[in-house]
Amino acid sequence: MADNFETLGELGESAVLARIFPRLPSASATIIGPGDDAAVLKTSDGRFVVTTDLMVCGPDFRLEWSTPHDLGWKAAVTNLADVAAMGAVPTGLVVALAAPASTNVAELEGIADGFRDACLEFSPDCGVVGGDLSVSDTFTIAVTAFGDLQGRKPVLRSGAVPGQIVAVSGVLGEAAKALRVLFAQAMDADGNPSHEKAVALRKLTGAQLAPRPPIRDGVLAAKAGATSMLDLSDGLAKDANRIADASGVCIDFESSLLGEDPELALVGAEDHSLLATFEAGTELPGAFRKVGVVREGRGISLDGKPHSTQGWDPYLNGSV
Amino acid sequence: MADNFETLGELGESAVLARIFPRLPSASATIIGPGDDAAVLKTSDGRFVVTTDLMVCGPDFRLEWSTPHDLGWKAAVTNLADVAAMGAVPTGLVVALAAPASTNVAELEGIADGFRDACLEFSPDCGVVGGDLSVSDTFTIAVTAFGDLQGRKPVLRSGAVPGQIVAVSGVLGEAAKALRVLFAQAMDADGNPSHEKAVALRKLTGAQLAPRPPIRDGVLAAKAGATSMLDLSDGLAKDANRIADASGVCIDFESSLLGEDPELALVGAEDHSLLATFEAGTELPGAFRKVGVVREGRGISLDGKPHSTQGWDPYLNGSV
Repeated sequence: MADNFETLGELGESAVLARIFPRLPSASATIIGPGDDAAVLKTSDGRFVVTTDLMVCGPDFRLEWSTPHDLGWKAAVTNLADVAAMGAVPTGLVVALAAPASTNVAELEGIADGFRDACLEFSPDCGVVGGDLSVSDTFTIAVTAFGDLQGRKPVLRSGAVPGQIVAVSGVLGEAAKALRVLFAQAMDADGNPSHEKAVALRKLTGAQLAPRPPIRDGVLAAKAGATSMLDLSDGLAKDANRIADASGVCIDFESSLLGEDPELALVGAEDHSLLATFEAGTELPGAFRKVGVVREGRGISLDGKPHSTQGWDPYLNGSV
Repeated sequence: MADNFETLGELGESAVLARIFPRLPSASATIIGPGDDAAVLKTSDGRFVVTTDLMVCGPDFRLEWSTPHDLGWKAAVTNLADVAAMGAVPTGLVVALAAPASTNVAELEGIADGFRDACLEFSPDCGVVGGDLSVSDTFTIAVTAFGDLQGRKPVLRSGAVPGQIVAVSGVLGEAAKALRVLFAQAMDADGNPSHEKAVALRKLTGAQLAPRPPIRDGVLAAKAGATSMLDLSDGLAKDANRIADASGVCIDFESSLLGEDPELALVGAEDHSLLATFEAGTELPGAFRKVGVVREGRGISLDGKPHSTQGWDPYLNGSV
C-alpha cells in the first residue's frame, strides 16, 4: 500500500467511488445499477426478500485483527446467510460505509474486493447494486441484502412441529473458538489488539474473521421442504430458542451430535451456519446433518434436559 | 422522560425491540414483516427500487440540535426522496441503528415515532419492515428504502435533452440557511452545540432538522413524463451537474426563478427537493415550478454564464 496512500479526505467522494466501483461484484438481477438516486432490481415472482445488518468497529470487529478484505467478506456473507435462511437466492446488496476521513482509500478497495470474492464464492449472481459513503469517527459498514424466492414459500422460524428432525449445515462454535484465540493471544503488552500477533494466528482465526457459511444450502433446504430455518448469529442455543418460541415447540439437541465441545457449540456465536427442521425421514440436503429432534414443550433441551437459551446480545454483552 | 430512563445496555436487544416495534409504521406491501431473518415484500411489476443512506452523529447531525423524532423523520424522508426521485412509490424501509449502550431507550422510541410520522405524512403505505440494532461509540442510522415503479420506467439522470424545461419541487437553500442559523446562534460559550439555544431557534431551523421534501411529486413527475429527475442532497448546482453529466447537456438556471438568494439556492445542500426536466410545453405537475432550461453544452450555467458546480462532499467537507 506504500505507493497508494491517499485518504478519503484528500480524494473526496467522487474519486473514492471511481476507485471502488470497478472492484464491486455486479448483480445479474440489475436493471439500474449504481449511479442514480436508487437502483432497480428484477424479481422473478413479484416478491423480494430483504435483510439488513450493521458491522461496527469495536463491538463487531477490530481493525488490528481483520484485514479490509475480511471486513467486506464478513459483511457480505453474514447478510447472504440471512437471505439463504429464508430459502431465497441472494440477488443484490447495498452497502453504506462510514469511515474516518483519514482512512486510506486502499482500505475501501480491500473491502470492495472482499465483497466481490464472497459473492463470487457463494452467490455469483449476487452483486453490489448501490451504496452510500459517509464520514464517521467509528468505522461502520451497513449492508442490506436482497433475495429471490423463485416462487417458493419463505422458510420462517414458525414451522417446526414435534417429531421433526433438527439439522445444522456449517460449523458450530468455530467462530467463538477463534475469537477466544484472538482475545487470549492477539493482544499486545498493553492489552490492545495486535495486528502482528493476529497475522501469525491467522490459521486459527479464519472462522471468526472470514467465516464461510453454507449459503447455497439455504435454497437446498427450502427445496427439501425445510419447515423452519434461521442462520446462527447469536449462538445455537439462543437461535434455536427463536425457532422454539415462534413454533411453540421444544428443540432437543443430542450432545453426541454436537461435536467435541457441545457447550461451545450451543453458546458460540457468529458461525452463521444454518439451523433447520425437516420432516422425519427427509434425506437431508447439502451439508445438513442431524443434531436433534423437535419435541412438545418450550425452549431448548440437551439430551432431554432443559438448557439455558442464553447467547450473545449486542447491548448486554457490549463488545466482541 | 424522567420516569422512563432505561438504557439500551440495561434492557438488552429483545426488550428494546419490544418497545420499538409497536411504534413503527407498517407497510402495505409486507408479506413477512420484522422478526425473521429477513422480510418479504410484494412488488407490483417484478421490479423494486432500492436506495440506502447513512446518517452519522457529527457529520450529519448533532444530538444537541436534533430531537430523536427529528432523526427518525429526517432518516425517513431523505430516503423516501431518493425513491421518489426515481418516479417510484415508497413501499418499505429497513433501519439499522447503532448507538452507545448508555443511550436511553426513550430516544429510540422517539426515533421510531419520527419514522412513523414521516411515513404517515408523505407515504402512508410505506413502513419499516425490518432492521438491526448494534452498539457504537458513534450514533449512526442506516436506512435502506424500497419503491414500486407500478409498471412505469424509472426516471434516471440521463434523459435531459436540450430545449426541455428544468423544474424544481420543494424549497431551495432553506436547509442550508437553517444550518447557518444553528452554527451562528445555537452554540454555547465554549463553541459546542447548545440544546437550549436550538430549542429557542426551532422555527428557523426546521428545514434542516426536519425537512419536508415533496415526496408525492416524484410519482406525479414520472406520470407527467419527466425526462430526468433527482433529489437535491448536495446542492442544486452540484446535483444539476449530475443530470448535465449523465445526459450530456448544460443545465441553465434563470436567476430570477431561484428566489431571493440565487447563490444560496445553488449551493445550499440537504433540501431534498426534486429537480426534474420535462418536455417544453408540459403542464408542470404538483408543486414543480420552472427554474431554467436544458441547453446544448456541459455543466451548469446561470443566466447563460457558466457556474461552479461545487457542492457538499462528505469526505472533503468533513462536518456539517
